[in-house]
Amino acid sequence: MWGIKLYRNSDVSLKRQIYLAVRDMIVQGNLPPGEVVPSSRQLARDLNVSRATVNEALDMLNVEGYIVSSQGAPTRVAQGIMLDPPTDAAPRTQKEGPPDFAADFRTGQPELRLFPRYAWQQISSETLGGMSSALLGYTGPQGLPALRNEISLWLYRSKGLSVDAQDIYITAGATHALSILADLLYRESQEIWFEDPCNIEMLQTFINKGYRIRPVPVDECGMQTDHLGGQSSGPVYVTPSHQFPLGGILPADRRAALIRYARTNDSYIIEDDYDSEFRYYGDSVSPLYAMDPDRVVYVGTFSKVLFPALRIGYAVVPRQLQQSWGRLRTHTDVQNPPFEQAALAEFLHTRKFDRHIGKMRKIYGERRQVLLASLHDQFGDDWRSWGDAAGLHLAVEFPGACFDEAFRQRTRQDRIRITPLDYHSIQKGLHANKLLFGYGHLEPDEIRDGIMLLHAYLKDHGYL
Amino acid sequence: MWGIKLYRNSDVSLKRQIYLAVRDMIVQGNLPPGEVVPSSRQLARDLNVSRATVNEALDMLNVEGYIVSSQGAPTRVAQGIMLDPPTDAAPRTQKEGPPDFAADFRTGQPELRLFPRYAWQQISSETLGGMSSALLGYTGPQGLPALRNEISLWLYRSKGLSVDAQDIYITAGATHALSILADLLYRESQEIWFEDPCNIEMLQTFINKGYRIRPVPVDECGMQTDHLGGQSSGPVYVTPSHQFPLGGILPADRRAALIRYARTNDSYIIEDDYDSEFRYYGDSVSPLYAMDPDRVVYVGTFSKVLFPALRIGYAVVPRQLQQSWGRLRTHTDVQNPPFEQAALAEFLHTRKFDRHIGKMRKIYGERRQVLLASLHDQFGDDWRSWGDAAGLHLAVEFPGACFDEAFRQRTRQDRIRITPLDYHSIQKGLHANKLLFGYGHLEPDEIRDGIMLLHAYLKDHGYL
Repeated sequence: MWGIKLYRNSDVSLKRQIYLAVRDMIVQGNLPPGEVVPSSRQLARDLNVSRATVNEALDMLNVEGYIVSSQGAPTRVAQGIMLDPPTDAAPRTQKEGPPDFAADFRTGQPELRLFPRYAWQQISSETLGGMSSALLGYTGPQGLPALRNEISLWLYRSKGLSVDAQDIYITAGATHALSILADLLYRESQEIWFEDPCNIEMLQTFINKGYRIRPVPVDECGMQTDHLGGQSSGPVYVTPSHQFPLGGILPADRRAALIRYARTNDSYIIEDDYDSEFRYYGDSVSPLYAMDPDRVVYVGTFSKVLFPALRIGYAVVPRQLQQSWGRLRTHTDVQNPPFEQAALAEFLHTRKFDRHIGKMRKIYGERRQVLLASLHDQFGDDWRSWGDAAGLHLAVEFPGACFDEAFRQRTRQDRIRITPLDYHSIQKGLHANKLLFGYGHLEPDEIRDGIMLLHAYLKDHGYL
Repeated sequence: MWGIKLYRNSDVSLKRQIYLAVRDMIVQGNLPPGEVVPSSRQLARDLNVSRATVNEALDMLNVEGYIVSSQGAPTRVAQGIMLDPPTDAAPRTQKEGPPDFAADFRTGQPELRLFPRYAWQQISSETLGGMSSALLGYTGPQGLPALRNEISLWLYRSKGLSVDAQDIYITAGATHALSILADLLYRESQEIWFEDPCNIEMLQTFINKGYRIRPVPVDECGMQTDHLGGQSSGPVYVTPSHQFPLGGILPADRRAALIRYARTNDSYIIEDDYDSEFRYYGDSVSPLYAMDPDRVVYVGTFSKVLFPALRIGYAVVPRQLQQSWGRLRTHTDVQNPPFEQAALAEFLHTRKFDRHIGKMRKIYGERRQVLLASLHDQFGDDWRSWGDAAGLHLAVEFPGACFDEAFRQRTRQDRIRITPLDYHSIQKGLHANKLLFGYGHLEPDEIRDGIMLLHAYLKDHGYL
């Protein structure tokens, strides 16, 4: 009948197979409008299925308006449904698999192999088991109170920062916090000041939202705040604890200048404290936030400290922005899932978190020393490192060298992943003699081999 | 010394306490610029701590630029740091606790008490244990391949919909998918067609992004597609399987009209299939997506089927939009966490998902019957229900009644949560005689008691 082929072992029920076949014929015009639909008895016999099955299929077609039945008249194909067939689907963009790098100095990647998987798993299972049913429903845009409380305690014991748990808003990571802020602050200003160079991915978040970017140059001490003001009164994005990518610590007078700028212009400072947990000499730097909680939005993340896939970060939000933040989050992605939040709260509560940071700080510090020694072994004295002894990457200057986008692509093709610092520049060319070495995710041998390989490569290709 | 008080049992180290105290005095101007800092020996003696502790505190102050030491000269307080104290923090917005409702007919809330917690917990633990370390890192914006694959299989077996797993993009729920789409499509059109009435929360997502809204009236069969075109060529948001909130199934000719509109205007149809899993008569309605995968973005969610806090939804994205989608997601919130994705994939794979839906469809169907019977018991024949026998809510018309925003607020104060349908209207007043009853989360007795209470309330307050 009508050339319908039924597959009796399919996951799709027979009635739905009949429905789909008839529907497609109607849409494609093979069953023209007004055509009489055979009786269910005849269809059942021809297709060798029960009348009940056919009736269910016809019911579906009828309910969805493909066929029209009226009292006393035969059932017919409805009007106005025929469509030209879709054009051939556009080809899918070819997705490249991750290339296999012989040396991989990418930045922003913590050591995943040393994460205490088992402890995390146990905590996850326990918190999942003890979770109330109410937490499976909507629990609001701010995040679990237990986690906010633990973050507040941790900010105090690790950075001496007093923050009320009620001012903390959980997000799906730092990028997400910035994305919410970008939407939130856009109503007041469509311009934003950004360090140059900066994390170009974070910059992209603001560009995507339609912001006009005002670059502020960076020196060894971070953002040169005397460039602020005049042209624009927009918010300022800054990484004061460890400038990305140059590594400076913003000094007190510039911090005070930022606060004065924000107060004068009724604007905000966005403080991205992306990896301040890992400082290898002295204590972690105190957040700018403490200087004026009404003018600074402090953004923190657990991606670098624990693992990126956790997708938990937070913002300490000035009170006058909190209501808008909550509403905006509700209409963006509603809330974080509660499971990782509960597990992380427990991880903090039991201080497993502090111990993990202590352990990793030691390991990352050693790896940093290996990197510095390897650079010295291979490059002698023809380089200097920038910035504070902190974080998971090192910015290195090679006087006279020039590392541009072509260099980045060429090295990648040759299975070396290394980022020219200029990649993160807004105004290109000012930092073309610097390379960024991410080392946190590499074992000492991987670092040594990678530097050896890179040195040979640079020599062979005339970059040195 | 300087009135510094140290707390020896604090979580904050002594060196940081000294640092914080001195820093605050400098910022507040109590230690003026140029003031000589006492020697570490003197400070140590006065504060009764070790010289090493004082030196570490002074190091921090020095590194962060609060004090300046130079060879052969005494250490002094740096210039330009003094700030006026912050104005008193803005009062925090009072957050109301969830009120305790005597009758709670809110919509969009599944029954959480019957979710198979134990099975989910077991699957979560197992998948967490078996997860590779690589999944703790960044795994890209599209979502876990295993989950996309299982969703593809499930769409086929439950709706007869053929979708390549490579065209599925995981999101943090339906709202999140719409939020990404709103950003993505804004580049091409700043207007969007919306059903009126619609889910007013979803509408808000587009309003927040700056869209101009073009309302399209809805009748018992869903969106009246003959209103499209002319003024605008923007995308169309539609709920064809079960119009929210009126409950109609969009008939085939209007579906074809939507496709023709999108083709003619080089635009897109956003199909929100928010609760099509629960249909109590016949099979679930086939998605519009099948008619033209290049013109329809299909949005699905697991919030209603499993539980809202899961925060997993998905979109089936036309190929020409996929690259932009991936880039945008990367700069918004990067990706979903992998844990729930892996657990959900396994839940689908083992068909525990299908069994849960089957079980809940039966329970929700019974509750719907209880609701209809209770309405009949209390209100006699003075009402009629709208829409198809599907979903987790019922739209009920009470001829002659008028339920407005004042009614909504008044009932809430009187501990009855019920939504006037007009709340979800763009043009207010057209549906003022209808109420929405969410029933999925209520046990039969709760439904009966709630309807009795509501009936008495409406009588007492002159609404009937």
